[in-house]
Amino acid sequence: MRTLLLLTVLAMTVASTNCTLTAQDLVEFDTEVYATGLDAPWGMAFLPDGRMLVTEKPGAVKIVDTDGSVSLPMTGIPEVCACGQGGMLDVQVHPDFENNSLVYLAFAHPIMQGDDKTSFTAIARGELKGNGLENVEVIYQADEKFYTKRGHHFGSRIVFDADGYLYFSIGDRGEQDKAQDYTNPNGGIHRIHDDGRIPEDNPFVDVDGAQKSLWTYGNRNPQGVDVHPTTGAIWAAEHGPRGGDELNHIQKGLNYGWPTITYGINYNGTIITDQVAKEGMEQPNWYWKPSIAACGMSFYTGDQFPAWKNSLFVTALKFGELHRLSIHGGSVIHSEVVSKFEGRPRDVITGPDGNVYIAIEGETGRIDRLVPKSE
Amino acid sequence: MRTLLLLTVLAMTVASTNCTLTAQDLVEFDTEVYATGLDAPWGMAFLPDGRMLVTEKPGAVKIVDTDGSVSLPMTGIPEVCACGQGGMLDVQVHPDFENNSLVYLAFAHPIMQGDDKTSFTAIARGELKGNGLENVEVIYQADEKFYTKRGHHFGSRIVFDADGYLYFSIGDRGEQDKAQDYTNPNGGIHRIHDDGRIPEDNPFVDVDGAQKSLWTYGNRNPQGVDVHPTTGAIWAAEHGPRGGDELNHIQKGLNYGWPTITYGINYNGTIITDQVAKEGMEQPNWYWKPSIAACGMSFYTGDQFPAWKNSLFVTALKFGELHRLSIHGGSVIHSEVVSKFEGRPRDVITGPDGNVYIAIEGETGRIDRLVPKSE
Repeated sequence: MRTLLLLTVLAMTVASTNCTLTAQDLVEFDTEVYATGLDAPWGMAFLPDGRMLVTEKPGAVKIVDTDGSVSLPMTGIPEVCACGQGGMLDVQVHPDFENNSLVYLAFAHPIMQGDDKTSFTAIARGELKGNGLENVEVIYQADEKFYTKRGHHFGSRIVFDADGYLYFSIGDRGEQDKAQDYTNPNGGIHRIHDDGRIPEDNPFVDVDGAQKSLWTYGNRNPQGVDVHPTTGAIWAAEHGPRGGDELNHIQKGLNYGWPTITYGINYNGTIITDQVAKEGMEQPNWYWKPSIAACGMSFYTGDQFPAWKNSLFVTALKFGELHRLSIHGGSVIHSEVVSKFEGRPRDVITGPDGNVYIAIEGETGRIDRLVPKSE
Repeated sequence: MRTLLLLTVLAMTVASTNCTLTAQDLVEFDTEVYATGLDAPWGMAFLPDGRMLVTEKPGAVKIVDTDGSVSLPMTGIPEVCACGQGGMLDVQVHPDFENNSLVYLAFAHPIMQGDDKTSFTAIARGELKGNGLENVEVIYQADEKFYTKRGHHFGSRIVFDADGYLYFSIGDRGEQDKAQDYTNPNGGIHRIHDDGRIPEDNPFVDVDGAQKSLWTYGNRNPQGVDVHPTTGAIWAAEHGPRGGDELNHIQKGLNYGWPTITYGINYNGTIITDQVAKEGMEQPNWYWKPSIAACGMSFYTGDQFPAWKNSLFVTALKFGELHRLSIHGGSVIHSEVVSKFEGRPRDVITGPDGNVYIAIEGETGRIDRLVPKSE
């Protein structure tokens, strides 16, 4: 199945001219189905050999071979709480994977408390051997007192920066006021070493009672986190309330305001706050109103689409859209919808081949990819 | 005629809740026709008494009374070249109008050169007396050698800053390379005293051969210019090539790149340049791709719509749209389409009553206004 998609930039007049169109003017691509038969794919990560790890939210991780064929569920995968928005969520590969074979998973970690099945976002790692993980250990786990029966806002996106620090997100877990309180792990971006140790320069390491892994707080449900390819800055897309999806430049120790300030309202139409800005709280670098239900995001780092180099792709659950934002000097200077998909795009990453891979949840869970238009 | 327009932010569920909606969450407005029978209205300016001056592109200026009734054409108005995009374009009122009655006009000034009717953007001022201007003088006029038969890109938007300097725009007049050459007045924002004298601190006053009135250059066709209500910064919307409409923060002496860099291509699909960025040239703060055909723009300074305070309104000829951009810390952090109109919205300003006035060119040239929704 191939679908030809043209950006709206060009009308048919182009075909009749003799000029050479350059990349920033003409971006034509085909959308290919790369892998099918996936059950609610949520996160993707490429291995150095070109194979892809993909999570399935109900609780599996699979390997997609370079021909798009999908493996059996990997063995050695931790049990998850497939509850509400929880499950097996993101996957990431260690920057030095070729030497240590380490794979990281973010998931809804279940604990029985009395008769209650509670969960919280946790991070595990293990060594990839064949079609399984070995020596799996949970390297981040919150105190049991934070575990909850709620199925909301797990965050869960994982990324490594150039210095090897591991960042991951945790949503407010449906208890929004906790996002303003750094004595709990809810509603923030966390930063740890690759083995789970707390970096000594984390912003709250010397604060009594604070969560030492927190890097920022006041984040509602960041489901997209990535490192800017040239500046090294951390950016996060925050799945917000209605009208309050945000894109933030994530900086050490800062408070991103949720729920004290927001551009959104509750989905039932009730008010969260009457403030959109406040001293000591960061403004978003971008907000979507109406909401797009932002999920996975990543910067495009390939060579197949020069016009998209370093652009930020953001998936939108609400309209099945893939958005592209141009960022210059820390500011968003352009936003467009690149494509629409059947289903809910959950994650987007650049492949080692320079194509753009999109994990799509839907009746036929699958991975699509955008490739340069064939002649 | 009243049309009820609701922002898409709210679904009908809101009506059934008991909460109090605050302004940033709910912006409801009616669109009223304020004045009709206008011939291609292009620029608007309010007088302190609440009446409005409006230009008609073919060559007239009229006064719209507070009840929306339109005067006969004002007397004493300079002759214009109603050629192509040229004509009677913008109008502005002196900040000290109550004492000096001065009104400013930007227009396509005609000069016969041999058998050729040529024109260039000029600025005139005169004293408003009754339904006419008296003591009219042209305070800015380019050297005759720059006049051209071309009907393209006059720029022409006028604004005063808080210090009383007068800024106005001139497009590249269809000779795009001239925008990169500050020895001609094409393609730039100009800055003069209210009587036409050149400020001593203009960036090119000491440069041999330069146009002393230039404040910036490398601007294609800025048809919207305004002063940010809190920062005092000058912003300009530049009607670009296809895919290259820009919003720029206008700063002294800087080069905005046209046509050396642009995100757009020619309307016939041919390439202008393969560069979107270059050292020594400014990136836009925002660009529209696909183009919207940006025209007049202004910051909202009224109290009728608190959620819109200090937002930037931009008119779009292409889709008949009114766009609203939120600007924070010099960056655009949100963009939305507020409304669509029949016709081509040419200009938008805040009225002294806090309502939003839009001049619309079309079969029935008129001025619409957005007012808070009636109960």
